[in-house]
Amino acid sequence: MGKILESIKLASDVKKLNSEQLKLLCKELRDEITDKVSETGGHLASNLGAIELTVALHYVFDSPNEPIIWDVGHQCYAHKILTGRDITGIRTENGLSGFPKSAESEHDIFVAGHASTSVSAALGIAQAKKISGDDNSVVAVVGDGAASGGMVFEAMNNAGRSGTNLVVVLNDNEMSISPNVGAMAKYLANIRSKEGYFRFKDNLEHTLVKIPLIGKSIFTVLRSVKTFFKDMFYSSNTFEHFGFTYIGPVDGHDIEMLIRTLRRAQSIKKPVLVHVNTVKGKGYLPAEENPSKFHGVAPFYKENGELKKASSDSFSHEFGKIICEFAEKDEKICAITAAMAEGTGLKEFSEKHPERFFDVGIAEEHAMTFAAGLAAGGMKPVFAVYSTFLQRAYDQVLHDASIEPKHVVLGIDRAGIVGGDGETHQGTFDIPILTSIPGTVIYCPADYDELRSSLKKAFDGSGVQAVRYPRDCERKVPEEFCAEYGDYNYFDKNSDSLIITYGRLFTEAAAASKETGASVLKLGKVFPIENNIVEICKNYKNVYFFEESVKYGSIAEHLGAKLFENGFEGNYKIHCVSGFVPHMKVENAMKIHGLDRDSMINTVKEALK
Amino acid sequence: MGKILESIKLASDVKKLNSEQLKLLCKELRDEITDKVSETGGHLASNLGAIELTVALHYVFDSPNEPIIWDVGHQCYAHKILTGRDITGIRTENGLSGFPKSAESEHDIFVAGHASTSVSAALGIAQAKKISGDDNSVVAVVGDGAASGGMVFEAMNNAGRSGTNLVVVLNDNEMSISPNVGAMAKYLANIRSKEGYFRFKDNLEHTLVKIPLIGKSIFTVLRSVKTFFKDMFYSSNTFEHFGFTYIGPVDGHDIEMLIRTLRRAQSIKKPVLVHVNTVKGKGYLPAEENPSKFHGVAPFYKENGELKKASSDSFSHEFGKIICEFAEKDEKICAITAAMAEGTGLKEFSEKHPERFFDVGIAEEHAMTFAAGLAAGGMKPVFAVYSTFLQRAYDQVLHDASIEPKHVVLGIDRAGIVGGDGETHQGTFDIPILTSIPGTVIYCPADYDELRSSLKKAFDGSGVQAVRYPRDCERKVPEEFCAEYGDYNYFDKNSDSLIITYGRLFTEAAAASKETGASVLKLGKVFPIENNIVEICKNYKNVYFFEESVKYGSIAEHLGAKLFENGFEGNYKIHCVSGFVPHMKVENAMKIHGLDRDSMINTVKEALK
Repeated sequence: MGKILESIKLASDVKKLNSEQLKLLCKELRDEITDKVSETGGHLASNLGAIELTVALHYVFDSPNEPIIWDVGHQCYAHKILTGRDITGIRTENGLSGFPKSAESEHDIFVAGHASTSVSAALGIAQAKKISGDDNSVVAVVGDGAASGGMVFEAMNNAGRSGTNLVVVLNDNEMSISPNVGAMAKYLANIRSKEGYFRFKDNLEHTLVKIPLIGKSIFTVLRSVKTFFKDMFYSSNTFEHFGFTYIGPVDGHDIEMLIRTLRRAQSIKKPVLVHVNTVKGKGYLPAEENPSKFHGVAPFYKENGELKKASSDSFSHEFGKIICEFAEKDEKICAITAAMAEGTGLKEFSEKHPERFFDVGIAEEHAMTFAAGLAAGGMKPVFAVYSTFLQRAYDQVLHDASIEPKHVVLGIDRAGIVGGDGETHQGTFDIPILTSIPGTVIYCPADYDELRSSLKKAFDGSGVQAVRYPRDCERKVPEEFCAEYGDYNYFDKNSDSLIITYGRLFTEAAAASKETGASVLKLGKVFPIENNIVEICKNYKNVYFFEESVKYGSIAEHLGAKLFENGFEGNYKIHCVSGFVPHMKVENAMKIHGLDRDSMINTVKEALK
Repeated sequence: MGKILESIKLASDVKKLNSEQLKLLCKELRDEITDKVSETGGHLASNLGAIELTVALHYVFDSPNEPIIWDVGHQCYAHKILTGRDITGIRTENGLSGFPKSAESEHDIFVAGHASTSVSAALGIAQAKKISGDDNSVVAVVGDGAASGGMVFEAMNNAGRSGTNLVVVLNDNEMSISPNVGAMAKYLANIRSKEGYFRFKDNLEHTLVKIPLIGKSIFTVLRSVKTFFKDMFYSSNTFEHFGFTYIGPVDGHDIEMLIRTLRRAQSIKKPVLVHVNTVKGKGYLPAEENPSKFHGVAPFYKENGELKKASSDSFSHEFGKIICEFAEKDEKICAITAAMAEGTGLKEFSEKHPERFFDVGIAEEHAMTFAAGLAAGGMKPVFAVYSTFLQRAYDQVLHDASIEPKHVVLGIDRAGIVGGDGETHQGTFDIPILTSIPGTVIYCPADYDELRSSLKKAFDGSGVQAVRYPRDCERKVPEEFCAEYGDYNYFDKNSDSLIITYGRLFTEAAAASKETGASVLKLGKVFPIENNIVEICKNYKNVYFFEESVKYGSIAEHLGAKLFENGFEGNYKIHCVSGFVPHMKVENAMKIHGLDRDSMINTVKEALK
């Protein structure tokens, strides 16, 4: 850790530094973050891009009295360090969360794992301050990707007239996760490029005079007033229609300019939008050159940016391959992603079938209804989406795709426990929400072959057809459990105990069966529940359901109710995920929630006693 | 029914009419709709405002090849009539749905009970057409209220660059349901008022020449080219930033001008936004003068607009009164609505505590996270929202208010079966979605006293506290079942059958108990389930759970699983709502789903046999 960095004990210590020290601090932060993320993996590019901005924010604002809300939160590493936290081992069980977390620090006032929420949250806090007569500012830092989400629009639509001291910083790195799409991105690019577009405004000039002086020790070279204006003020744009005072665009790596701009924003005492241009991966060449790779990256060699364990083996990758194959043969197949073309494995599809590929930005609600529209127009859309982000489109699945059924395939990635991303990203809620919607069919394959057959069935079906799979590669099952998978597979071991499960847990169940002699029922189509399954269960004294889902609304619960109503008289035990699962290795989480093979073995053995 | 109207057998028949006949048709439609809605109730003001627009759309576009998607769908009555449907008895069991419904007509291509979905759906259909080489237009008609929803922004953000023949008609009546709020509303008002703002654009002028000639028989008096331009083209605004060609604002009651404008929009062959100004309630004075009252109105006397059965007796009204009282004593209480100040009973609150009242527009996602922000800032927010619209904020309840618990009270109105609004508005999903989110507490009061005590508990609690109640007034329970309600009330009748229920069904259960002698367990705090309840159930041979919720994820199912796991050996039967419930009287729906007192009585009696 660098010398300046070591001297920062409190966030407010940043305020004591002079200009040179601030620049040094940025360098040290950059080194520290690159170092630590190379060891554990994590979000690198966005953090490197936001370093000067973070330092400037803490220089100007008085966190936590003037809270800073990060959107999406994965750009908060420098903020964590400056507020007294050590990011060694970040995203691992004993380290910090990769997102803001109020349990860690009073400086993390609001959770932010999902994008586009910050302006709403900040406006709420700002209104609370206004009601309480508290004059402090509230800052929301929004990435340009997050700004493609409708919630930001809804919040901006309400913020302009709010009379609050809200400062929205648009951290515009021109690409978010994938190269940014949509009209808003184009519009921002337009603002950036139009030098001649800016113009003075008398009232701005007038207000400027009131800006508190910035110590001469910091800014020894004062730019001419003219350049100052020219750099900082473009006006009369869309953000002003929203009632915001717009300042920008500002070079997000010029710490002095940032401080000056943020001070001005702080002094205006009404909603301000500060448009900051940053470069993703700034200062670390491999990340600057390939920011997508270093968005959320696995551990890598710092010298050259190469991954320590390169692997393209995953359900996501396999999903992308299969969809490409299907699309070769069926030209009605379209693929949709909400800003996750790489994460969901759709990169190849996007290149092979650009006319049938739609990256809609961080806009899951729109994505789902758009998919339903494509279906209404005769296409066969698949919406590839992380389980946790599908939560955003619950109403769209229900209202737009299910009441009048549209044939939409959902490729639900990162289903089940996700590991390092923690609470905000767990895929443990899609089962309850999808099963509550009449007509939904859900598959959960255990391996790549079954992924293929599930997707085939999903495209052959009707209405909403979901195929869910984990952030993982396939797991090998013991040979005697290898089979051509059907809607379910029953491995009768002539026991009085039955283990039911699906997806990647099948491997664990198979191993547990070998150890205990218990029979195994592996579901492939997990919902709706086949009637035969009740009959199978009736042959057993003990039935154990292991499932990577929260309990309330799980398949295990639905089956339990069904068994109960059908006069099953044995014992029935549900093993599910309870509560929100923090960041830790998937294996550890499985153990804690009793879903690993040892837990299964112990459960069965205990009953046998 | 008028003479012209009678001559319309197909939507395309509208195209055969001349200018005078079109105007007459509008008059006849206005009479027909006012007549029929006065009998059954329904959405009046918005329909009267959209009559010329509807006629013009069918005059210009070739539905269903050029589909028209209504957003929100309650402005579709004239469209229903022109596409050969009789609106007599609309919203009643034997009549039409009050919303577009594809089962009714090929002209209703997409369901639309929830707002802000149309541009996404239309863009999907338009992309499907583009992929298939179909040159026809797709039209979305969006109210200015619906345009405050983030989904419209997300869709517009994607539509501009789509190269599709998408026509978005902004039906701007300056108020949506409640007087419209937010920056967008202000911006639209600004466009409307700035006469001097418009300017020619060469390319527009150029394109205009290509517009197909409109038959002289229709437009005998051609306005001068100059006026034509001046009226029709304002330019260089926010919509153009989105990549749309903007045309407007146009007088939405000038049928000739509308036809001319829509023809132009149709001819442009890329995304166009047509801004139409309409007057809610147009042509029926009582509705023009009080459009809020006539938004969704009960049956009324056509002569004077007075309601046939005036009543302010409802859970909503009572909720508003109670919140007002609480807010008198506790100045931290804030109330939030998403454009439903009247519907949720918050009108009085908004007048008494304007500084603590927030109508955020049709923006449930923002509303929920904003509420969480208020809570993070030390306030005690209550978000009053219809059950069906809470579906939109699932992720916000989970991610923003529950992972790091924020004390937000949800006043969930229209919970359970809703009646005339049908499938798109049923409040039968909030139980599954809320119970899937760790930490949620849910109350469901049976009467006004319990509503008050539930709200008291909710404000005294922590995390997300939901109080849900029906679109109904309280129901009288038999005297022997009157009690001071606790978290649950157990009426032990020394029987071997137990009926469990909550909310308004308690009255039915009490009546069934009188008839059959069954005991009754009435839940007040319905979730999480108290352990005592399992113990009570164990005293019974037969336990019946009656619940106004879909089954998967219901309290009945959760209790079932719990009973099962705790060794309950009796019979357990769940009676829930199955599937999507179409529009019909609440009482009829109750019968069909086995939730009325007769069904309860029969269920208990059958088991006794």
